[in-house]
Amino acid sequence: MNGAQSLVRTLVDHGVDTCFMNPGTSEMHFVAALDDVHAMRGVLALFEGVATGAADGYARIAGRPAATLLHLGPGLGNGLANLHNARRAHSPMVNIVGDHALSHRAYDAQLQSDIETVAKNVSAFVRTTESTAQLGTDARDAVAAAYGPPGSVATLILPADVSWSEGGQVAPVLSGTGTRPGSGTLPDAYTIEAAGAALRSGERTALFIGGRVCSGPLLNAAADLAFATGAELLCETFPARLARGAGRPPVERLGYLAEFAAMRLDGIAHLVLLDAKSPVSFFAYPGKPSDLVPDGCTVHTVAGPGDDVAAAISALSDLVGAMPGTGLRQQGDRPGLATGPLTAQTVCQTLGALLPEGAIVSDEGNTAGLFAPGATSGAPPHDWLCLTGGAIGQGLAVAVGAAIAAPDRRVVALEADGSALYTIQSLWTMAREGLDVTTVILNNHSYAVLNMELDRVGAEAPGPRARDMLDLGRPDIDFVQLATGLGLHATRATSSEAFADQLARALATPGPSLIEAVVPGLL
Amino acid sequence: MNGAQSLVRTLVDHGVDTCFMNPGTSEMHFVAALDDVHAMRGVLALFEGVATGAADGYARIAGRPAATLLHLGPGLGNGLANLHNARRAHSPMVNIVGDHALSHRAYDAQLQSDIETVAKNVSAFVRTTESTAQLGTDARDAVAAAYGPPGSVATLILPADVSWSEGGQVAPVLSGTGTRPGSGTLPDAYTIEAAGAALRSGERTALFIGGRVCSGPLLNAAADLAFATGAELLCETFPARLARGAGRPPVERLGYLAEFAAMRLDGIAHLVLLDAKSPVSFFAYPGKPSDLVPDGCTVHTVAGPGDDVAAAISALSDLVGAMPGTGLRQQGDRPGLATGPLTAQTVCQTLGALLPEGAIVSDEGNTAGLFAPGATSGAPPHDWLCLTGGAIGQGLAVAVGAAIAAPDRRVVALEADGSALYTIQSLWTMAREGLDVTTVILNNHSYAVLNMELDRVGAEAPGPRARDMLDLGRPDIDFVQLATGLGLHATRATSSEAFADQLARALATPGPSLIEAVVPGLL
Repeated sequence: MNGAQSLVRTLVDHGVDTCFMNPGTSEMHFVAALDDVHAMRGVLALFEGVATGAADGYARIAGRPAATLLHLGPGLGNGLANLHNARRAHSPMVNIVGDHALSHRAYDAQLQSDIETVAKNVSAFVRTTESTAQLGTDARDAVAAAYGPPGSVATLILPADVSWSEGGQVAPVLSGTGTRPGSGTLPDAYTIEAAGAALRSGERTALFIGGRVCSGPLLNAAADLAFATGAELLCETFPARLARGAGRPPVERLGYLAEFAAMRLDGIAHLVLLDAKSPVSFFAYPGKPSDLVPDGCTVHTVAGPGDDVAAAISALSDLVGAMPGTGLRQQGDRPGLATGPLTAQTVCQTLGALLPEGAIVSDEGNTAGLFAPGATSGAPPHDWLCLTGGAIGQGLAVAVGAAIAAPDRRVVALEADGSALYTIQSLWTMAREGLDVTTVILNNHSYAVLNMELDRVGAEAPGPRARDMLDLGRPDIDFVQLATGLGLHATRATSSEAFADQLARALATPGPSLIEAVVPGLL
Repeated sequence: MNGAQSLVRTLVDHGVDTCFMNPGTSEMHFVAALDDVHAMRGVLALFEGVATGAADGYARIAGRPAATLLHLGPGLGNGLANLHNARRAHSPMVNIVGDHALSHRAYDAQLQSDIETVAKNVSAFVRTTESTAQLGTDARDAVAAAYGPPGSVATLILPADVSWSEGGQVAPVLSGTGTRPGSGTLPDAYTIEAAGAALRSGERTALFIGGRVCSGPLLNAAADLAFATGAELLCETFPARLARGAGRPPVERLGYLAEFAAMRLDGIAHLVLLDAKSPVSFFAYPGKPSDLVPDGCTVHTVAGPGDDVAAAISALSDLVGAMPGTGLRQQGDRPGLATGPLTAQTVCQTLGALLPEGAIVSDEGNTAGLFAPGATSGAPPHDWLCLTGGAIGQGLAVAVGAAIAAPDRRVVALEADGSALYTIQSLWTMAREGLDVTTVILNNHSYAVLNMELDRVGAEAPGPRARDMLDLGRPDIDFVQLATGLGLHATRATSSEAFADQLARALATPGPSLIEAVVPGLL
């Protein structure tokens, strides 16, 4: 067995059975091993950012890591932005980065570079495997590191000769090693006591939730806790995965704009953090504070990403007497189909009217998608995936991975035009794999968020040359042609009625398609 | 004056007057400064890899640096692959990477990451400016570092508050500081003597040239040197810029395939390196040597990228009595237009028949483009830009930058289908800027080079699952629709006659267009 075969087998034995790849010459033995190990599914991407974003989306939905296969330093670089988002999402993932053969390193050939420095930017685990016999064990360590907690990006650098040489050894699965997430550090009693006292104090208190608390049983438990204590239930601005819709606890996401976030938090005396970081503004602005915690508010860091947040919530619940199943639940309540001229708002309204049960929304709608959460809050139960790290170009790729993780669910990618163009190659993988992804492009022909930010950062009286750098017109981009060129069925909507027709049809048709929703540049 | 204004003015004063950008919020003051400093031209890219590749292409043609403007770590990551190519090309370039405000750093907001670690992968100069007053000087240092020699990628990290604060100071231009390349280290007499002795020894000797010796007066001088001594004139496999065509010295590029390269070098007793590295194989292969220097051959490293190669060539020429203007020159000799079924070979033949004088060819044709150098060797004088670092996705972006550096010349981007898809967004910038770029996509619906490499690396009997990862069909990609969607005029050719018609028309029409040449998958 060569190294590559031992690697693929070890990954599969540890539950990693999907690999999003954009391989090159140094990865050919890994690719060849796909014919030996049929349990590993290879998914080809035309660009590495698609592969890394897809692995992130896969992890958010499957709750376990996928692998990526990337080609040396430049391949890792191309995947870096979505690895950044994955790092912020605490998505478990294992990157296999092919490198030159150990014997080739001395020669500084054209593609050589310092891969480890780049990998450190995003990875909690970085290791270069130096011998074929060690590869299986290193892969197991990488999977274990990826699971965490916290869920992390693990990067294994694989020299070509380590991969092609005979002597590979599949690492045995040790009980509990790298097959599921650990539970994390137990909360300390003092912190729990203090947070419990805050919750019972009668002062305005908010549970500020993130990470693992935004979906599954922990979300329900947090809602019960809020109900028992009268605490407000808030969540981080860009959760990796938020369970929402009818029958789920209604959770308010803290606003992106620092002004609104600060206003929302004003008057809160205690913030109880449950797998969330203390709120800070996304960017700094001249003369405005970065820290969004109001003066005089006490922050209780009950559990972070590496902690056993389930135990913490359980302990808090015991302390305050929260009862399972008592928390608020969202009523089913959908808007009607929108009519009239198409705007960002009517697109979101119609999405709320039609979103199917069990849908997964990959939300990179940015400014134009601002109305989407409100319009879908009472839709049937669904999951919402956000731009965790702020590196645009995530949405389409995350949709690919989510669809592969959940082949029985409909994925909706709500995409801004500017963001879509970073990883537009995702559409081809959707077509090739026949994924049930409905992509809605909100095309306002501009980097609208930057036009807003240009004013907000206090750049005085921006002139035409600055505005031109934020303008995506001249020429206008035709997403119907782009999508068709990449193998997708695509349509364009310029009225709300047409959009509703097209969306209904797309959601009812197996496989991927794209709707270009042409909306005005200003909200 | 704020920091951003002082930065832009300093760049312009030091000859950096073009900035390829994909900005975000933290870069808004730089963008706003474009309206204060009209001498700086902003060129918008939809993806950072386009911006960095364009800056590389610009430097190769203009001989001076452009700037890029990138958004934090993820933006740098997206640009990394083409920065890698630029590093290998020794292209001078100044990256401005916006970062969070210094005051914001403590909060580890969503987009924060360790930018310096990523920048080190590609940059000879990395600095984070910590005060507004320092910014002008830091920019000057960055430009000076970019000029070299060797020409380098310089990366200046710019916190948002350093950019927006008042107190910017334009750095005065010191004589010779950062306005042109230095000449480098003088060659030592012993090395020159030894190389001169080799050239006069009567043994088989080759001048192996690269970098600055591949164009301009040094290329002529190298040809004179070869003529005077009977040495063979070879150049590195992927020169950054090779001057060629009728009237220029004929230079043979060493082959990409190690087997052919080794065969070519067999029997050579002396290799005299002039701004070139000793030849090594691009990748390692099981059981094959990486070092391509034949046994018993002496390598004379006369001048590397940081050395004064002009002085070295001059000293060698004096030593052996080389006479200016005596070197071989290529005869004008074009093939006729190809006819019949369209193949990679007939595309290249027709390119040879029609390539206009003064053209710049950005060559990322890979396997399908293999015949292009031969078919164009006797075409009117032109420049040839190669994939220096092996990170595919360079060709279209380099074409953008080359066209902006030389608005009076026709640029031909010869692109393989797989490579084109990494930075396909380049087409939009061509359209927006009205660049005279003719893109020819060699569409064979596969990663043909990898199908070849899969066999060459010794992966035994690759199966259908492996082959599927190298197949760009299912669905086929329609480059005419992709290009049209990005605002370009585009056509498809499936016969040699149609290709000749379309290419002739494209070359004669101002502005950009694209031809999809549908060619068989095997050469």
